Amino acid sequence: MTSRNRAAPRALESRRRALYSLSVAASRGGAVEERGAKLANPIVVEVTRGPLVESRHRGAGAVVDAGGAVVFSFGDVERPVYPRSAVKALQALPLIESGAADRLGLGDKEIALACASHSGEAAHVAGVAAMLGKAGADAGSLACGAHWPLGEKAARALARSGAAPSALHNNCSGKHAGFLCLACASGWDSRGYETPSHPVQRAAKAAIEDLTGAALGEDVCGADGCSIPTYAVPLRALAHAFARFASGEGLAPARREAARRIRAAVAAHPEMVAGEGRFDTEVMTLLGSRAFTKTGAEGVFCAALPAAGLGLAVKADDGAARAAQVVIAALIARFLPMSEPERARFATFASPAVTNWNGLEVGRIRAAGALG
Amino acid sequence: MTSRNRAAPRALESRRRALYSLSVAASRGGAVEERGAKLANPIVVEVTRGPLVESRHRGAGAVVDAGGAVVFSFGDVERPVYPRSAVKALQALPLIESGAADRLGLGDKEIALACASHSGEAAHVAGVAAMLGKAGADAGSLACGAHWPLGEKAARALARSGAAPSALHNNCSGKHAGFLCLACASGWDSRGYETPSHPVQRAAKAAIEDLTGAALGEDVCGADGCSIPTYAVPLRALAHAFARFASGEGLAPARREAARRIRAAVAAHPEMVAGEGRFDTEVMTLLGSRAFTKTGAEGVFCAALPAAGLGLAVKADDGAARAAQVVIAALIARFLPMSEPERARFATFASPAVTNWNGLEVGRIRAAGALG
Repeated sequence: MTSRNRAAPRALESRRRALYSLSVAASRGGAVEERGAKLANPIVVEVTRGPLVESRHRGAGAVVDAGGAVVFSFGDVERPVYPRSAVKALQALPLIESGAADRLGLGDKEIALACASHSGEAAHVAGVAAMLGKAGADAGSLACGAHWPLGEKAARALARSGAAPSALHNNCSGKHAGFLCLACASGWDSRGYETPSHPVQRAAKAAIEDLTGAALGEDVCGADGCSIPTYAVPLRALAHAFARFASGEGLAPARREAARRIRAAVAAHPEMVAGEGRFDTEVMTLLGSRAFTKTGAEGVFCAALPAAGLGLAVKADDGAARAAQVVIAALIARFLPMSEPERARFATFASPAVTNWNGLEVGRIRAAGALG
Repeated sequence: MTSRNRAAPRALESRRRALYSLSVAASRGGAVEERGAKLANPIVVEVTRGPLVESRHRGAGAVVDAGGAVVFSFGDVERPVYPRSAVKALQALPLIESGAADRLGLGDKEIALACASHSGEAAHVAGVAAMLGKAGADAGSLACGAHWPLGEKAARALARSGAAPSALHNNCSGKHAGFLCLACASGWDSRGYETPSHPVQRAAKAAIEDLTGAALGEDVCGADGCSIPTYAVPLRALAHAFARFASGEGLAPARREAARRIRAAVAAHPEMVAGEGRFDTEVMTLLGSRAFTKTGAEGVFCAALPAAGLGLAVKADDGAARAAQVVIAALIARFLPMSEPERARFATFASPAVTNWNGLEVGRIRAAGALG
């Protein structure tokens, strides 16, 4: 269930390619179920209620160093998974390294918003509007679609005001504003910026290919909730990408500097990346620049631990955010040195309580198996 | 993965008891994970995006006739699962069969509300307030706690009005109002009506024990979200209970008549049981009295098909509502004769689309494996 692999880089690369091809094939059609039935990922999270385990989540995950060695893994980490919003920081690299962010005068808050799945709070909406203004664009330029703010308080406040949500409230609006900034500063026509063939998406894909080492084609391309392409990548390769994002190892100088600047911007403004009470904001507020974490839809989570030079990537088979959170928290707790007070506060994320509507604890969500 | 079992009732009963004991033991402590790893339930639902399967749900389910014979099953149907809100109709039996509903003059809408996990729409809130009035109680008597309406539209409307949610908006408030009606009409002190030792909860437990044939003790008792006890029952026994609820077979005359009346009340007012756009309301509006369906938290679903004399019970291992819905829909489609137009409309529930924020289809949720 766990593996430690420090094979020579060349042999490792060849093994990776072979496994990758096999896994792509296995993710299609009838083979999936056969494979799933035979090689079930382990139970990684249990949800208890009273004396029993009520629900169980299976999943896979990898902890990889900047050289590509798998330090720890569980489940199938070679099967490609859509990273969804977990790679927004990688998709933001071209915005920084091209000089576009500097040419338009984007600050740290705005860079953090470009990496955000924000809650649609007032500060998020205002920040995105400011980014759009710098790109000579407005909410009508956003291709992400509108939805009610992810943050419950923000959604209620918007309803109370009598207004309807716009594309500015979409949790991905900061990423989209970043794309529009890149197009503007590069002199590209921004129309269709969300499509795979637009230079903005090609640049984002090239950055992910560079950091993950995976070849991303149409055979692993789906449409994300905000209408941009999302390319499936093995968890091992995603974790490797975040180890390189954490350390800069093996990256071109401009890309290394862009990664450093994004990490610093997010560490300075974790409130811009998610929102009040949400995992990414709370964990990065607690741990500062020692941990970069980013959630993705359908149970994906990625993290970078710069001091340790490690990247982490997990996916709950069933797409549950509560499971992915507990798993990434368990991995952070295992690989990041923390003080006792930090560890005590971190327990809220590693093993959250299940409460009833009267606020009483009736169960817990906890890591299980190799992570327990 | 599937089984057809028409063994003699006596042998079946003895086998059931043995399996039940084993399964209760297996649901505790370290045995769970070992067992989970060795005997994983099958993949029953796949969520696709573009060319790949993005997420997978495992689960178990049973279709049982009123005699207790398992007509169809998959996964471990002997492990006790908390039925949560899926057994509200069984918990409402004492309210009807005791004569309490008649003494207080409850109508069909109010009986349907007693079985509801409602959306907190205006009609639900008004109906629950009326039930409370008939019991000489008010919102302050409800022990369920307050939460924002489950229905998004209802929640936004409440926010827009500037009000905060009360216990009336709790999705379980109709069930709790029914408990208060039973206590009132029976001359019981209603204080503590939500606790396991109160006559109201003892009556509800006895009804579930009668229909399921399972002995429900503290060893399988958790606290539900609305603070009443929830007792874990094997899916096979839950499905058997709903077959008897559907047919009345083997029930005392007053209980049989109460079951018939509840089915009729819900069939007449499916809008009271859930709400606009929700599975139970939409499916029962489509199929009328031919199908009784009821969702429960953490991926449980039960259903009764009166004409076929069948009961259905499913649980998604991971607690996902989207998976339980697709599984129960697949079972209904398999065991309930439908016209072609009905089948076409039912496809929305059997294989819902995954859409992005611009409303475009980017994937599907579909039954898999033995259910596909």
